[in-house]
Amino acid sequence: MNYTDNYNPSISDEELFESIKQEREHIGYYNLVHQDTEHFKAFAKTVKQKHVVVIGIGGSTLGTYAIYKFLKYSKDLEKKLHFLESTDPIELQSKIKTIDLEDALFILISKSGTTVETISIWKYINSLVKCDKTNTVVITENDSKLNSYAKANDMKTFEIPKNVGGRFSVFSAVGLLPLAVVGLDIDEILCGAKKVYNSFFEKAHFYERILKKARFFAEYKNSFNINVVFSYSSRLEGFNKWYIQLWGESLGKIDINSTKQGLTPVGIIGPIDQHSFLQLIMEGRRDKTVTVVKVEDFHNEAQIPGIRLKGLEELSYLENLNFSYLINEQADATIQALNDLNDIPCDVISLDGVDESCIAALMYEYELLTSVVARFLYINAYDQPGVEAGKIILKKKLQG
Amino acid sequence: MNYTDNYNPSISDEELFESIKQEREHIGYYNLVHQDTEHFKAFAKTVKQKHVVVIGIGGSTLGTYAIYKFLKYSKDLEKKLHFLESTDPIELQSKIKTIDLEDALFILISKSGTTVETISIWKYINSLVKCDKTNTVVITENDSKLNSYAKANDMKTFEIPKNVGGRFSVFSAVGLLPLAVVGLDIDEILCGAKKVYNSFFEKAHFYERILKKARFFAEYKNSFNINVVFSYSSRLEGFNKWYIQLWGESLGKIDINSTKQGLTPVGIIGPIDQHSFLQLIMEGRRDKTVTVVKVEDFHNEAQIPGIRLKGLEELSYLENLNFSYLINEQADATIQALNDLNDIPCDVISLDGVDESCIAALMYEYELLTSVVARFLYINAYDQPGVEAGKIILKKKLQG
Repeated sequence: MNYTDNYNPSISDEELFESIKQEREHIGYYNLVHQDTEHFKAFAKTVKQKHVVVIGIGGSTLGTYAIYKFLKYSKDLEKKLHFLESTDPIELQSKIKTIDLEDALFILISKSGTTVETISIWKYINSLVKCDKTNTVVITENDSKLNSYAKANDMKTFEIPKNVGGRFSVFSAVGLLPLAVVGLDIDEILCGAKKVYNSFFEKAHFYERILKKARFFAEYKNSFNINVVFSYSSRLEGFNKWYIQLWGESLGKIDINSTKQGLTPVGIIGPIDQHSFLQLIMEGRRDKTVTVVKVEDFHNEAQIPGIRLKGLEELSYLENLNFSYLINEQADATIQALNDLNDIPCDVISLDGVDESCIAALMYEYELLTSVVARFLYINAYDQPGVEAGKIILKKKLQG
Repeated sequence: MNYTDNYNPSISDEELFESIKQEREHIGYYNLVHQDTEHFKAFAKTVKQKHVVVIGIGGSTLGTYAIYKFLKYSKDLEKKLHFLESTDPIELQSKIKTIDLEDALFILISKSGTTVETISIWKYINSLVKCDKTNTVVITENDSKLNSYAKANDMKTFEIPKNVGGRFSVFSAVGLLPLAVVGLDIDEILCGAKKVYNSFFEKAHFYERILKKARFFAEYKNSFNINVVFSYSSRLEGFNKWYIQLWGESLGKIDINSTKQGLTPVGIIGPIDQHSFLQLIMEGRRDKTVTVVKVEDFHNEAQIPGIRLKGLEELSYLENLNFSYLINEQADATIQALNDLNDIPCDVISLDGVDESCIAALMYEYELLTSVVARFLYINAYDQPGVEAGKIILKKKLQG
């Protein structure tokens, strides 16, 4: 009696680690932490324009937006960063109205170089203002059509390496160039990411944490098919959106046995979504894990004043509290309420503060987590074949 | 041999309809379409301030924001509407900076009257600017502590009826008052909602559509536990958020058999999320239904100009297309790609245009759909007991 099978073997931690180290040899995002940033900083110093406009969509904008949104009110930035993404005409025109086009640097980003939304918007911008090498830089693959365009117009270009996927590209030129131009410290960004990289590859703290979490997510993928990130700061709204792309597009895949896998990301914001999604978590079907992200120190002194309001005396316990204390107490109360239920998997990530290093560490941790979960699920985290069908249909419709 | 059971009987369409008609007798939101709007319009005429600031959270803001975000760039509004919701101190201060506090009307909204976020922010505002009957109105329940506060300070009040839940309150004073003040046509809003109301209760078009959809969602709740709304316009971002609260908080409940039910709402925006979440829908586990919402006519002439870009000639098929045409072709291409897969339940809602009536009809349809799904699932759509635990813990922490 012979026997063969093609069941997915379960992977030991050691095998997993070896396979991630192998992946590191050819998947580009891992090693972005070792980059030299001088050419980004040198270019940033030359930029005189007050408005910086990123034209791109998906992986070309989400990571940059996440970091900018987290930091923009906590740093004294002289330039304003804008993002033009959507073909929604009302959105496009209303955003353009907030930009001084004559005092703008345009950063045109498309990995493939032929993204429909990006090129459409770029043509539109060209009809509104003269675009040339004095106000335009291009970030794309070295051999893309967009690169040819930039060369033909003598525009400065920065490269997206072929082996860095869009949704893993925030620590490449895609994120670092615009962030350097608006005045953020991109060395601190890489420093934050590198701490996580080192800890993981030296099998220290992040190795334990990421492996344990990824194994749980993969093992219970059928019971807990939804992974909620509950971020207790409106500053993390961009991070949530970036997480949704990273998680959804990397893990929604057909595995090596032709089975459709997919963990569904949900991003919510505290305390606002205590008044929205929390009820579903607490009393709904047990199909969700919850990761709470907190900011330990907002570096902000705004306080609820000791004002008595007649009729509302019962809320006097709020008097003289710092808002940053209050929001963290709200987060802790939610965490305790979740834990008291005993049947909702929940973990808590606390960021020390509102700075470049903290947000970068969080994002790099999520990139590693995504890679490890994908490995456990026997899927390729780095392609996105499912979106091709729609693109082909669109092209036919428009060319027809 | 005796036999009894407590299985949920399956409900016929006729029984469902009768039970909704009974519900209409005591659940307040159904009949808001019949309201007299004169007192809202009369008050709106008296407002001289240029900035209108809603202070509230969850059901007190989401519906108003949905309608305002949909319409604000398409109407010539003289006043600007702001929303202060979160206790995030950086968010709070950055939003306040955009408001001229001396030229602002504050609309303080809390159904219970003692919402922690709302009262905290209100106290903070009071430390920045004198707040009295000349610049403050209050919307709350008639016997709330907040109502006592308003009376003690001689401030104008508008009522949230006890039997209208926060997330179903957009067509009450909660939504209509601020929207009237900024200059939107609230009669057109009610007119859009009423069309759906009439069609449903006269067992016409919307009756068929809502019952079919609700029955499907309830019957396949275990296979398709995620309901994606894919809105092809950035103008619908507020609607998505409102939908998430309505759906999540209404349907995430313990049913009459003590089983935890819950359909998980996800809101995404096209075409942006073609570059994010779409891959997961296309190749991920089959656990999602998809509702595409389109805007047929953006009333906007923005066009991709007939400019040739050297190197990018292959995208010349985009030349001279209207953006509103392009985004709708993108939506149709996605719909076709989804339908070609044959195993993803998908429906399409097309709004005629960008006006008060269209968005109100969409929202009222979703309110009715929520009520009907809840009835099929044997749950109470109108309470939210699951969020109480966290509130009690927070109060103890802060008072301790």
